[in-house]
Amino acid sequence: MDSLRRSSLALLFFLLFSFCVSSSAAKFNIPRLRTRPRTIQNEPILMSASESKDYKTFLYTQPLDHFNYRPDSYKTFQQRYLINFKYWDGANTSAPIFVLFGGEESIDYDRDINGFLPENAPHFKALLVYIEHRYYGKSVPFGTKEEAMKNASTLGYCNSAQAIADYAAVLLHIKQKYSAEKCPVIVIGGSYGGMLASWFRLKYPHIALGALASSSPILYFDGVVDPQVGYYTIVTKDFKETSESCYETIRKSWGEIDEVGSRPNGLSILSKKFRTCNPLNSTSELKDYLDSLYTDAAQYDEPPKYPVSRVCGAIDGAEGTDTLDKIFAAVVTYMGNTSCYDMKEFGSPTSTFDMFTWQVCTELVFPIGHGHNDTMFPLAPFDLSSFSKTCEGLFGVQPKPHWVTTYYGGQDIKLILHNFASNIIFSNGLRDPYSSGGVLKNISDSVVALNTVNGSHCLDILPAKESDPLWLIMQRKAEVEIIEGWLAKYHADLLEFEDETRARSQELE
Amino acid sequence: MDSLRRSSLALLFFLLFSFCVSSSAAKFNIPRLRTRPRTIQNEPILMSASESKDYKTFLYTQPLDHFNYRPDSYKTFQQRYLINFKYWDGANTSAPIFVLFGGEESIDYDRDINGFLPENAPHFKALLVYIEHRYYGKSVPFGTKEEAMKNASTLGYCNSAQAIADYAAVLLHIKQKYSAEKCPVIVIGGSYGGMLASWFRLKYPHIALGALASSSPILYFDGVVDPQVGYYTIVTKDFKETSESCYETIRKSWGEIDEVGSRPNGLSILSKKFRTCNPLNSTSELKDYLDSLYTDAAQYDEPPKYPVSRVCGAIDGAEGTDTLDKIFAAVVTYMGNTSCYDMKEFGSPTSTFDMFTWQVCTELVFPIGHGHNDTMFPLAPFDLSSFSKTCEGLFGVQPKPHWVTTYYGGQDIKLILHNFASNIIFSNGLRDPYSSGGVLKNISDSVVALNTVNGSHCLDILPAKESDPLWLIMQRKAEVEIIEGWLAKYHADLLEFEDETRARSQELE
Repeated sequence: MDSLRRSSLALLFFLLFSFCVSSSAAKFNIPRLRTRPRTIQNEPILMSASESKDYKTFLYTQPLDHFNYRPDSYKTFQQRYLINFKYWDGANTSAPIFVLFGGEESIDYDRDINGFLPENAPHFKALLVYIEHRYYGKSVPFGTKEEAMKNASTLGYCNSAQAIADYAAVLLHIKQKYSAEKCPVIVIGGSYGGMLASWFRLKYPHIALGALASSSPILYFDGVVDPQVGYYTIVTKDFKETSESCYETIRKSWGEIDEVGSRPNGLSILSKKFRTCNPLNSTSELKDYLDSLYTDAAQYDEPPKYPVSRVCGAIDGAEGTDTLDKIFAAVVTYMGNTSCYDMKEFGSPTSTFDMFTWQVCTELVFPIGHGHNDTMFPLAPFDLSSFSKTCEGLFGVQPKPHWVTTYYGGQDIKLILHNFASNIIFSNGLRDPYSSGGVLKNISDSVVALNTVNGSHCLDILPAKESDPLWLIMQRKAEVEIIEGWLAKYHADLLEFEDETRARSQELE
Repeated sequence: MDSLRRSSLALLFFLLFSFCVSSSAAKFNIPRLRTRPRTIQNEPILMSASESKDYKTFLYTQPLDHFNYRPDSYKTFQQRYLINFKYWDGANTSAPIFVLFGGEESIDYDRDINGFLPENAPHFKALLVYIEHRYYGKSVPFGTKEEAMKNASTLGYCNSAQAIADYAAVLLHIKQKYSAEKCPVIVIGGSYGGMLASWFRLKYPHIALGALASSSPILYFDGVVDPQVGYYTIVTKDFKETSESCYETIRKSWGEIDEVGSRPNGLSILSKKFRTCNPLNSTSELKDYLDSLYTDAAQYDEPPKYPVSRVCGAIDGAEGTDTLDKIFAAVVTYMGNTSCYDMKEFGSPTSTFDMFTWQVCTELVFPIGHGHNDTMFPLAPFDLSSFSKTCEGLFGVQPKPHWVTTYYGGQDIKLILHNFASNIIFSNGLRDPYSSGGVLKNISDSVVALNTVNGSHCLDILPAKESDPLWLIMQRKAEVEIIEGWLAKYHADLLEFEDETRARSQELE
């Protein structure tokens, strides 16, 4: 277990990228879903055989469409979920159920990189449940992944509202199956999975008592937060705070890349300098690659290795004064010293698509761009019209950028929710670029924000490590204490409620 | 205006009916949507030309399907809504917006029978908005009503989740159009429309500050309340409390109808005795008719005429001792003395269907039956299996009786919502049979139940009359005061919120 806990962790999240850095007009970009590459901060994640035997796999027959009654809505698919019964004190004591909401990955992956559930289960005597998100992993409608991803007619059922309705149905099924109707459910998720967790507490309070939403940018939609001060502002801040000269070097590198690229044989010079596996076809290929590398380092800027520090250490420490040599030194440090570097390492947003590209192209429209000219990236604001055009080209349907705020809200969130809703923890690490779309202030006594100044993406729910700094240990401790408070209040309410019910039925006798 | 206010009112609600009373096995029945027949308590509803000119009609282009991204989901239809600007103090003072949620009728009808909005608008300086429910009135997808009602593929988009998503989209549109983003919205509805109002406050608290849900049986699903003690228990109680002998006469009449009907020429004897417009084909036709008459009288047992008292007065006061003569006297009193009585007056549940039959056959599965043998009706409990079979025969799709509680909750509502949610009034009249599925106890300080012992269905939101009893006047007054409290708190919060925002932006300068 310790080795697992010690292994540093990738977190399932989309990294955005592929901005056009050669002109001030924004090219298409999609915040990407992807498993992180095996870079310096990624050690392999393996669950030992003795641990994985504690998890039982189940399938639930889920309707394709919860919100209509068309004949096609009644089609079903098999949704996978895992249960670990090892620590549960059972229904008789109304012991809690901790549920990890799958995000845009297989549930095996989500389980393997999560530390919060297994580490806290013994203390809470909790049942552990992990539910896979529709269309991911093995929970795929229409028989095969290929069929499910065929076109918008089959993809069309993949969205957050259907996903949390799935989770509602599975949880009611589990509660009934184990006579656990009175067992309080705490839902937990990171990044997109955390958005689902907080939205679930808002939409299905009768099923989940509370939610822990780690690094969940639920406000990153439809102009709720200023899109000019967003993801790339934080990436820049991370680098600038780490090293002003590193920030300056990166800032001026884009122009140098363009300058070299525009020379005769310029692309081949760049290909050679950056040791690319294939000859570059454009400077954008290289710039997109570097953009992704910097954002990756910032988003997962975790202790004890702090990738941004290492990248900047390489840049600042490189011999000579050539800007592009310094940048290449960063590549070698971050990606490891290999014979060549694959410019498609971080994915290619427009050539192929994956399920999460579908989701960001329809419902989850994050207006992420290089919005301010004081970032270390060339100006290239998010452009909805070109974004929509590309999405339509990929899928034949248009994004609906207003739907998330229509369905889930977000505007004036404190005014709205401080007198409505309860029991949500929004945790963020402020070095995480996605914290720019997070809830960073307390909304009420029980809808609270837990930020760490030096934290990165989803750090709090990753497995604990011996090297964890005190501030991270304290953040996790605070989360546990808040959840203890919710459960204590629930159990007191439940007693009172049962007393009332008993008194009422005695009256009737 | 006064004449309108004085006119007694039909309320848009389904009356259930058509129970088999000839055997202990339940036949299929559907709680029916229908405009009430012109019986004694129904005076014509007319809005004067001078009043109706205050209402402007608008159309909003609404997507057919909010919850998927299939190409078909992007189809649109024109949704109708009405606005009365006359009383509004405007966006500058954040004056409130009162919204009537259309139920299963045209919005003209819903507007015409509502008194709460126009009567309280001057005091609150409120904008009045009335939104028509999809598939009703003129807000019909697929071009024509005929096309929309063709089969489950076109009907499939008609349900409560889509309807409240429509309302959310229209309200955000209105707020934006009139720069009314900070104007608090209070949603109001009666019966099914009231269910939508309370569900809307739960699902879209960022759009509606509060809800007044009049006579809304949101707990009448999936075993939340004991289906054995439901609608027909209250009908029976209403009659029994009014007159024990009346109750006894009705109770024994079913057997007599069957006895007479089983004689040679029995049906023609009954046809003659009950002056039916067409010869009876079975005793069920007559019994269904009487069942509907009694439930109609109970549901709309309004002051000052109290139809149940009149029905019982006729039964108890009839000359002679013949049970069926007494029952016929009730028919004459309730329906008026006419040359013949149409046994299809209250509709025929299985021969044709209307939109609300679709809704109860898919999503809104009310398990209403003659559940106890101490009702004045023959035992005939609700039978899900035969109900489902009939629905499948009508539409080709199965009911989903668990969905309402999965999506909206209902179980342990006090335990769940007292620490979540705010600002909902559940008003009920306890003589209304649907109050058996209503929220009759306070859930928290601001999620409250306002019951009147002698009230009937939706009485509180009908136009005020000079003859209104004190308890009704007090119920309405309590509603107004509670809403005043919500608005006062909101405006105080808003000031604080704006001060905070101002302070923050000054900090940044």
